[in-house]
Amino acid sequence: MKTNCFFYNKSIKKYSITPNGVIMSKSHSNIALIKYWGKHSNKIQIPLNSSISYSLGKVYTVTRLIYQEKKKITYLKVFFSGKEKTSFLPKILKFFYRISFYCSYLRNFNFIIETSNTFPHSCGIASSASSMSALALCIMKIEKKLVSSLKEDFFFKKASFLARLGSGSACRSIYPGLVVWGYHQSIEGSSNLYAIPYPYEVHSIFTKIEDTILIIDDNPKKILSSKGHQLMNNHPYARERFKYANQNMNRLISILKRGDFQEFGELIEHEALTLHAMIMTSRPYFLCMKANTLNVIHMVWDFRKQNNKNIYFTLDAGANVHLLYPIQEKTSIIKWIYSDLFFYCKKIIESFCL
Amino acid sequence: MKTNCFFYNKSIKKYSITPNGVIMSKSHSNIALIKYWGKHSNKIQIPLNSSISYSLGKVYTVTRLIYQEKKKITYLKVFFSGKEKTSFLPKILKFFYRISFYCSYLRNFNFIIETSNTFPHSCGIASSASSMSALALCIMKIEKKLVSSLKEDFFFKKASFLARLGSGSACRSIYPGLVVWGYHQSIEGSSNLYAIPYPYEVHSIFTKIEDTILIIDDNPKKILSSKGHQLMNNHPYARERFKYANQNMNRLISILKRGDFQEFGELIEHEALTLHAMIMTSRPYFLCMKANTLNVIHMVWDFRKQNNKNIYFTLDAGANVHLLYPIQEKTSIIKWIYSDLFFYCKKIIESFCL
Repeated sequence: MKTNCFFYNKSIKKYSITPNGVIMSKSHSNIALIKYWGKHSNKIQIPLNSSISYSLGKVYTVTRLIYQEKKKITYLKVFFSGKEKTSFLPKILKFFYRISFYCSYLRNFNFIIETSNTFPHSCGIASSASSMSALALCIMKIEKKLVSSLKEDFFFKKASFLARLGSGSACRSIYPGLVVWGYHQSIEGSSNLYAIPYPYEVHSIFTKIEDTILIIDDNPKKILSSKGHQLMNNHPYARERFKYANQNMNRLISILKRGDFQEFGELIEHEALTLHAMIMTSRPYFLCMKANTLNVIHMVWDFRKQNNKNIYFTLDAGANVHLLYPIQEKTSIIKWIYSDLFFYCKKIIESFCL
Repeated sequence: MKTNCFFYNKSIKKYSITPNGVIMSKSHSNIALIKYWGKHSNKIQIPLNSSISYSLGKVYTVTRLIYQEKKKITYLKVFFSGKEKTSFLPKILKFFYRISFYCSYLRNFNFIIETSNTFPHSCGIASSASSMSALALCIMKIEKKLVSSLKEDFFFKKASFLARLGSGSACRSIYPGLVVWGYHQSIEGSSNLYAIPYPYEVHSIFTKIEDTILIIDDNPKKILSSKGHQLMNNHPYARERFKYANQNMNRLISILKRGDFQEFGELIEHEALTLHAMIMTSRPYFLCMKANTLNVIHMVWDFRKQNNKNIYFTLDAGANVHLLYPIQEKTSIIKWIYSDLFFYCKKIIESFCL
């Protein structure tokens, strides 16, 4: 599907919509296995390589979108955990501006957005992913009220398309399970414009994976993702990175089918370290890892070696660590995490891959 | 000069040499500003980019080479800090084998090598650099006894050439000050075969630099440099890395002339992070930094920002941190290091750039 498929067509048969109403949506955070880091500089949120993520249970955003027919006055208000947040307005306004081309009906309404997360804001867990995704789903629920013929497949594709315009990786949070964003020649239906559920065979070992999230640092990130993506333009290793990510996707397709957890783990760790290597070698350079990130990584490596366990880490563009392991090994691993790693963490979130 | 210039020519006029004797040499460790990481896979110790280092005061190796005319029996013994070290023999034997083509006179002697360092062995400070350099200097002192016409310039060039065959970066430890190894189109006389003293103008701010070495981890390195260099073959970012190192040398030539310490510092920090980024993205991947490496780096960045001080770090392929700053700022900086960073270190070595 192309961009122009997502324009709102006024001429098609419509339902009526009440002048005021409330819509609610929930959207999960996600953790990328193959990382999205770098986007086209002259296009809106078009990735330079395809990425794949797991959507995560227990860590999500709930958004209530209150819409009121616009009369004389115009307003947009945002509440986060019950408190009005004017600091969120610029990002939301930018989002509404971008999607207004595809959702012209939005002009007829004022909005109050009430949103809350089950996890700390700006702690490195992709809060913009789940919140932009939840908001996009709310908006699509309005569109569904307006358009009688709106199909489920289109509903989610356009929700993902809109979410992407709010925050790149948000487009992956629309679906549960393994989700792919970005065109890849080996993945049918993959697109730079929206995410799709991973369409191929997945070995049963990859359908029940725990993700224990170690919050190492709950201060807001020092490097914003948007800034980080910019740094990939004119980055000395960008071109090779995108090529390599592409190869990794091919490798992962085969791994997901065969069910080799060790290969899977080594691939995601290599991806995580590559993301941070890109951050360390950009100009200017940054270091998002904290001391306890490294403490945890070295501990995980030692534990894995000594106990022959299937536990591997991945990282977002922050200090926190995601530990992935099959549910079958949960009992011993979670015990070890609390006894040996808790010391290094501000908080532990027991999530899982949806 | 080419490789064949370093062959020992039996036909030229010689001095006599006593059948037994003792030779002593001292050689300093060095810290690279532009890193050497990656060598030609089918050549002996030929770097894939040119590097530049400071030789370091106070951290050095002293080597006594006892030579005895070979009669019936053949032996080679190595003593380290007074104790015989058979574990060092393979490396030394390999070195003697490699240099035997250029120093055929060595075949006439048995050797006892007594060596000691002023710093911990395998702690990440380049002990192989200073020890191979010291040994190469000892051998050249034998050659000097044998060849009447041996010129000083040739003495050091060949010493550097031999040291390189023992350990790549050892060839830089032959000289004090700023030393360049590896051909670079902007540096006259630079060569892949041996190091040369940096031949251009250096601003006075770069002639009196402190290097306070924070020993974060005194266990032997988990990744040997030789292994690390191998990993740069077929490394996804190798080619771009070598190009970038080349550009950095051009930038550094200009910085050294202009005396811009901030630019200098940012360049060496970027180089250090790039070295570790290469280690993190090789296959297999490694992480040589430890938690306290990151603690120190983040502390240095905060301190620099808050106090407007000229203090920058660099790293070798290990966990330890070198802190470089102009001697003029020593009083306040060294006080801060002991009060705020000592906690993260096993040991602090107050070195300086020769």
